[in-house]
Amino acid sequence: MAKANAVVGQSGGPTGVINASLVGVIEEAKKHPGIKNLYGAVHAVAGMVKDEFINLKKLSPTVLKDVAASPSSALGSSRDKPDEAYCAKILEVFKKRDIRYFFYIGGNDSANTAHIINVMAEKSGYELRAFHIPKTIDNDLLVTDHCPGYGTAAKFEACALIGDDLDNRSLPGIKIDVIMGRHAGFLTAAAALGRQRDDDGPHLLYFPERGVSMDKFLGDVEGVYKKLGRCVIAVSEGMCDTDGVVWTKKIAENSEKDAHGNIQLSGTGVLADYLAGQVKGKLGIKRVRADTFGYLQRSFAGLQSPVDVKEARQCGRMAVKFSMKEDSGSVAMERLGSTSSPQAGSGKKYAVKYVRTELSNVAEKTKSMPDEFINEQGNGVTKAFIEYAMPLTGGVPKSNHLSSHPRV
Amino acid sequence: MAKANAVVGQSGGPTGVINASLVGVIEEAKKHPGIKNLYGAVHAVAGMVKDEFINLKKLSPTVLKDVAASPSSALGSSRDKPDEAYCAKILEVFKKRDIRYFFYIGGNDSANTAHIINVMAEKSGYELRAFHIPKTIDNDLLVTDHCPGYGTAAKFEACALIGDDLDNRSLPGIKIDVIMGRHAGFLTAAAALGRQRDDDGPHLLYFPERGVSMDKFLGDVEGVYKKLGRCVIAVSEGMCDTDGVVWTKKIAENSEKDAHGNIQLSGTGVLADYLAGQVKGKLGIKRVRADTFGYLQRSFAGLQSPVDVKEARQCGRMAVKFSMKEDSGSVAMERLGSTSSPQAGSGKKYAVKYVRTELSNVAEKTKSMPDEFINEQGNGVTKAFIEYAMPLTGGVPKSNHLSSHPRV
Repeated sequence: MAKANAVVGQSGGPTGVINASLVGVIEEAKKHPGIKNLYGAVHAVAGMVKDEFINLKKLSPTVLKDVAASPSSALGSSRDKPDEAYCAKILEVFKKRDIRYFFYIGGNDSANTAHIINVMAEKSGYELRAFHIPKTIDNDLLVTDHCPGYGTAAKFEACALIGDDLDNRSLPGIKIDVIMGRHAGFLTAAAALGRQRDDDGPHLLYFPERGVSMDKFLGDVEGVYKKLGRCVIAVSEGMCDTDGVVWTKKIAENSEKDAHGNIQLSGTGVLADYLAGQVKGKLGIKRVRADTFGYLQRSFAGLQSPVDVKEARQCGRMAVKFSMKEDSGSVAMERLGSTSSPQAGSGKKYAVKYVRTELSNVAEKTKSMPDEFINEQGNGVTKAFIEYAMPLTGGVPKSNHLSSHPRV
Repeated sequence: MAKANAVVGQSGGPTGVINASLVGVIEEAKKHPGIKNLYGAVHAVAGMVKDEFINLKKLSPTVLKDVAASPSSALGSSRDKPDEAYCAKILEVFKKRDIRYFFYIGGNDSANTAHIINVMAEKSGYELRAFHIPKTIDNDLLVTDHCPGYGTAAKFEACALIGDDLDNRSLPGIKIDVIMGRHAGFLTAAAALGRQRDDDGPHLLYFPERGVSMDKFLGDVEGVYKKLGRCVIAVSEGMCDTDGVVWTKKIAENSEKDAHGNIQLSGTGVLADYLAGQVKGKLGIKRVRADTFGYLQRSFAGLQSPVDVKEARQCGRMAVKFSMKEDSGSVAMERLGSTSSPQAGSGKKYAVKYVRTELSNVAEKTKSMPDEFINEQGNGVTKAFIEYAMPLTGGVPKSNHLSSHPRV
C-alpha cells in the first residue's frame, strides 16, 4: 500500500489501560514510514463523522507517558452505535483525508463498527486496513484469552474486597458489594482474588451466568453468618433469578408487595439497598451494609495492573504491526504455558502471544464465564478461575490481621 | 512507676493507617523495660470487659510489616460507647491484670473513654497512664493539625475524582459523587486535590459546613453544564439545606410530594440517586450518573499515603514515649513551617512535631472545616485548603488527556 494516513479512536466505557493501547498505537505508528499522519478521532466515531481530529505524532514523550498512566479515554469516547449510513459518512471522511489505516480500541461494538466500515471500503474498492484493539473491564470478548482493561479492574476489585473484608472482620456483620457486569461475571469473580486465609471474604459470590433465587441467596448468607458471625458478599449487577430474569427487574415488579426493601425503581443503589433490606428484614440481622462500586471500578486513578498496562500497550503496537503486512482484523492474546498463578509458585511463568483474528469473530459477540470457573453451588469461584485471573492483576496486596491470634 | 503491663485497642470505624499506629505502639513498647506485657484488646473496649487479649510483643517482624500495610483495625474494633459502669468493669480487668498503661487508638469517643477510665483510676488511687492516639478519616478532632487516617482517605478521594473527571470528560454529562462526612467536609474537600487543569472536576463541592438549597445546587450545576457541557460534583453525605436540616432528611420528608426523585427512605444510595433524579428531572439533562463511594473510602487495600503511614506510626510511638514520663493525654501533631504544598514548590518543607495534650481537650469534641478552606459561594475549596491537605496525601497521580488539543 502507498503511503497514507491513519486514524485511531477509543470507544465505549473507559478502562484503566485504554490509553496504554492508544500510546502503543502512537509509538508503533511513528516507526512506520508507510503511515504519514496519525489522526486521533475526538470522541471516537462522533469525531470521525464530524471530521474532528488531532495530530498524534506531534505529542511529546512526557504527554504520552502521562496519558498512558491515566485512566479513561484520552481522546474522548462515544456511545454511538453506527449503522450503515453512519459508517458511510465515516468512510467519506476517510477518503477525503486519505485515511487507509483505521485502529479502533473498544469492545465488541467497536469491532463491529470496524467490520462494517471495512466491508464497505472493500465493496467500494477503497484500500483500507481496519484493526480492532480489544478493551473492556467486563472481559467478555471472544477469541482473546482475556481483555486489556480487565486485569486493572480485577485488581481494583481485589483491593476493594481485601479492605472490605478486613473492615467487616473488624466490625462484624453483613456486607454486600454490587459489582459491574450485566452479562458476564468475570469482574465479580475477581473480588475473590484478594482472599488470603480460609475464612477471608468474599464468602459468597453471585454471577449472571448462574441464576439464583432470593431464598437460596438468603439461605447462603444465613449459613455463612451462623458459621463466622459475619459475611461478605459480591454480587454482579446483572444477577438474575433461576428463570433468567434479572434481580433488578424482579425488584421493580415486586416493589409494592414487599415490606422489607424500601425500594426505589431507578438509580444506582437499588440492588444493593434491596438486598440489604432483605437480609435485615428476613434474616433479622442488624448490622447490614451494602455498597455499589460504580464508576470507580473502571476509572480509579493511580491503580493499574503492570501486566495489563504492558499487554494493552502491546495490543496497540501489534495492531499497527499487523496492519503493515496483513488484512484487517482484531488483535487477540493467546496464553502460553500453564494458567497457574505466579503467586502459587506452581506451573510455568505466565506469558501471552499476540495474534490476529477476523473482525467478524469478535464483532457483536460476547462470552460468559466458563463453567469451570464457577463452583457447583453457583456461589463462588474455583481454583481454575484464580489461576486464570491472578496473573492478569500483576499480584494483589498482602494483608494481615490479628483478631484470630491466641488469647492470653 | 514500677514495671507493669500495657494494653492497646483500636476503636470506631477503620482507616487505612490505624494499624500503622498499632505497630508504632508495639515497636516502641518493646523498647521500654517498664512495660512487661503488651496486650492487644480484641474488639476494643468489648474485649477489655470480656478479658480478651492477645500478646503483641511476640508477633514476628513479618506479621507486623503486613499488619502495618493493611487497612482496617487488625485487633478488631467496637462501636460500644462505654458509660461509667462499662468503664468500671474495664478498670477492674486492668487492676486484675496489672495493666497501668492504656493506649487507645480512635476518634473523640475513644478519647472520652480513655478520659473516663483515667479519672476513675485517679479517684480510686490506681496509677494508670491513659493515652489516646488520634485516628479518623473525617479529620475532625481538636488540637491536632490533622488526624492520622485522613491523608490516606484524602488520597483515595483524589484518585477517585481524577479518574471520575477523566471518565466524565470522555463521556460528558453530569456525575455526582457522594462522599463520607456527616458533620465535617474535609473528606469531600479532598476530592479537589486531584485537579490539574483549569477545567478539571470536581467543578462543584458541597460541605456540611455550608447549607445550600436545592435551587442553588441546581443553579450551580446548570451554570457549569452550560459552560463546559459537563459537570462533576462532590457532595458530603451530611450536606444540609440553608436551614441546617440535612438533605437526606428533607428527601425523606418530601418523598411523596416529589415526582423526580424515585425516592427510597433508607439505604446507601438515597442521596446520590435523589440528586441524580433532580438534575435529570428539573434541568432536563439526559446523561446523569451518581455514585456513593461507601466503605471503599476507609478501607481500600494497597493505597496508603506514605506521609500518613509515617505519622500514624509515629503517633503510636509517641504515645508510648509520653507515657514513660508524663501524665495521661492525647497525642497531637503540630505543623511546622509553612502550610504550602511541596507540589507547589513554594514555602518550607512540610513537617510536623508531636505533642501531648489533655484528654479532655479532645474527648467528645469535633471540629469543622475552617471558613478559610471554603470558597465564598460555598461550592468549592480555597487555595489555603489545597496547601493544607496536599502534603498529607504524599502527592497524587499525575494525569493527562488529549481531547482539548488543537484540531487538524
